[in-house]
Amino acid sequence: MRFSKLFTKTLRTAPKDEAARGAQFLLRAGYIHKELAGIYDYLPLGLRVLENIKKIIREELNEIGCQEVLMSSLQNPEPWQKTDRWDIEKMDIWFRTQLAAGGELGLAPTHEEPMTNMLKSYVSSYKDLPIYVYQFQTKFRNELRAKSGIMRTREFLMKDLYSYSTDEESHDKFYHEAEKAYKRIYDRLGIGGDTFQTFASGGVFSKYSHEFQTITEVGEDTIYFNEDKSVVLNEEVLNDEVLQDLGVKREELKSARAAEVGNIFTLREKYSAPLDLAFNDKDGGRKTVFMGCYGIGVSRVMGVIAEKLADDKGLVWPENVAPYKYYLVNIGDEGTKLAEKLYKGHEEDTLYDDRDLRPGEKFADAELLGIPYRIVVSDRNLEKGIIEVTNRATGETRELPAKDFSLSNLHS
Amino acid sequence: MRFSKLFTKTLRTAPKDEAARGAQFLLRAGYIHKELAGIYDYLPLGLRVLENIKKIIREELNEIGCQEVLMSSLQNPEPWQKTDRWDIEKMDIWFRTQLAAGGELGLAPTHEEPMTNMLKSYVSSYKDLPIYVYQFQTKFRNELRAKSGIMRTREFLMKDLYSYSTDEESHDKFYHEAEKAYKRIYDRLGIGGDTFQTFASGGVFSKYSHEFQTITEVGEDTIYFNEDKSVVLNEEVLNDEVLQDLGVKREELKSARAAEVGNIFTLREKYSAPLDLAFNDKDGGRKTVFMGCYGIGVSRVMGVIAEKLADDKGLVWPENVAPYKYYLVNIGDEGTKLAEKLYKGHEEDTLYDDRDLRPGEKFADAELLGIPYRIVVSDRNLEKGIIEVTNRATGETRELPAKDFSLSNLHS
Repeated sequence: MRFSKLFTKTLRTAPKDEAARGAQFLLRAGYIHKELAGIYDYLPLGLRVLENIKKIIREELNEIGCQEVLMSSLQNPEPWQKTDRWDIEKMDIWFRTQLAAGGELGLAPTHEEPMTNMLKSYVSSYKDLPIYVYQFQTKFRNELRAKSGIMRTREFLMKDLYSYSTDEESHDKFYHEAEKAYKRIYDRLGIGGDTFQTFASGGVFSKYSHEFQTITEVGEDTIYFNEDKSVVLNEEVLNDEVLQDLGVKREELKSARAAEVGNIFTLREKYSAPLDLAFNDKDGGRKTVFMGCYGIGVSRVMGVIAEKLADDKGLVWPENVAPYKYYLVNIGDEGTKLAEKLYKGHEEDTLYDDRDLRPGEKFADAELLGIPYRIVVSDRNLEKGIIEVTNRATGETRELPAKDFSLSNLHS
Repeated sequence: MRFSKLFTKTLRTAPKDEAARGAQFLLRAGYIHKELAGIYDYLPLGLRVLENIKKIIREELNEIGCQEVLMSSLQNPEPWQKTDRWDIEKMDIWFRTQLAAGGELGLAPTHEEPMTNMLKSYVSSYKDLPIYVYQFQTKFRNELRAKSGIMRTREFLMKDLYSYSTDEESHDKFYHEAEKAYKRIYDRLGIGGDTFQTFASGGVFSKYSHEFQTITEVGEDTIYFNEDKSVVLNEEVLNDEVLQDLGVKREELKSARAAEVGNIFTLREKYSAPLDLAFNDKDGGRKTVFMGCYGIGVSRVMGVIAEKLADDKGLVWPENVAPYKYYLVNIGDEGTKLAEKLYKGHEEDTLYDDRDLRPGEKFADAELLGIPYRIVVSDRNLEKGIIEVTNRATGETRELPAKDFSLSNLHS
């Protein structure tokens, strides 16, 4: 992409009510636009980041046999009434709306109910199970306070996966596969090293659920862990019973600020029983389906990565997430000639800053945007026969021979 | 994909209130699931169709310099108040909702206002224009009556493109490029031959707009055209003034039922003036941006294709739209052995009906699902050294030599 063609520009200031540093950078760099508190638009660069995150998640979920769908946002109250989650007193984050034709609808804050209800058309025998079904869909949550930029919003993009199994044993097997898939996802997203699976509250129907928490100063949560991080737990389960369960003592635990980037939950029959999602088992008996759910907030993960990795000059994207891999800067006539040549065939992975600006402005924008590799092709360098390649994350600059230089073999 | 792994099954019946034949097939074949009148879920096969349509549209729009974004669904009333489209009396299809923190929001039925408003951050000079920006985003429309399956719904996926130009001349140039892109899109979608650009009402601010109408019995519209279809117009503009404009006589026109599959609109300053999207022109003067909008209902197009091309046995997808290109059927032991071999490496373009069912049931489902090519690998055929390939659209069966048969070179 030529920067001169990109309709967004970098902005000097971010909205005053935006406290989080990463969110300020996202706004200033033109990744997102703020509509209202907790409601954002994704501009070309931001949408590319979302799509990169989606692609990684989709590949890993398809790999473990999950199937993708797209459920509606508008929600029929009926299945939610059956599970006792329609009342605002039971679930206070509902957005509601009125049908002109009469009747009240909700905007889906999550999709356990419609997904489970839909599957009643397709599940009758044990032979139809297991089923693992997911979607990337907008969720609406009527939060009293939205905060931390795109980390906690009123409208956000979520990947939600639901598993439907014949029994706990079969469920546990998949749950373990999902754990491993989640770890691969965070590794590929570039935050694997600081992301830990934690013990979290299981609600009223399971002893524990698990969260994936990424250590970062801007996180809303506190997690506790022992030295080697083999035991990590959320604050809400830090009590004597749990500590005994996990075989650690309180004084062996350290704490850290962290942000939740995913959760996995054994739901048992919580939703399948009231919605009567059942099947005929091998022995002829009728059994309720055993469920799990597995969430990753896609836009939230984008926010966490932005907040966690940003430095004081701007964003720092991991390679797999970045909207472009290369930020190509041309300086001078010869520099421009060669930059144009290098750009050819790299329109998809390169943001070519061909704008008519001073080098200093381009360098500042390169840092603000956080593209992994800045490539400077200048007359002065070309006289020395070199091209400068700067790693955004480390700040390290390498001088590479201009002769035979190509973006395609930069890493080979 | 192995059919045995697909969680959807073909159903014997569709909901009783579903009148449209294509919609019945989409429901029975497991492409969609009905939540409520006018509200549908897209199941794995249906989502693949949507994604195929999106891909074609995206490629053609990127080709003419458009940039993709994703705007929020929740809408701040303010910009809509400025353009006088917030009042229910002015726009009666709003879904409204209340913020828990106080205040009313809308669910976007279209995005002229937020898009134009957002661009105020990025447009200041004539040098920033033109801008062509689009999205694929859910639209919510509070229709009193939903009908024709997924053709007219309360929640649907739309591609909406907005153009921002310095003046009418520059606008017209792009408008013409968009017309050509739309024609390429319908050609690639497999309905180009029966899709015509029509003169339609321009509202209060332009003489005409244009619609793209696909001839089909189930269409809600009537279009009028002369013999060679060089002049095609919508019913609402069939009056003496327009006929004179277009140089045709009423008696030279035939009529046909048609369904709208897109529209393009010269908006002039209708939204940019009240929202004050203006720029400093070359001569130093301040000028309002000249706008156009260009819509294609993605899920609607899927519905129109389903309705138009279905026969009495089921759906008939054009190759570029179909969820899979090949429907592979194994019969018998040798048939299964070879089918497994053929399937390898074709997981992405083949639905392999490996279910333990009678051939007749598989053939019926093949017709219901409407995948372009059915490939039958049976013991009986293999004894004769052949494989049967049946074209879903024409019904024609070819017998091809089993030796060296491969899905990869089926069309070469």
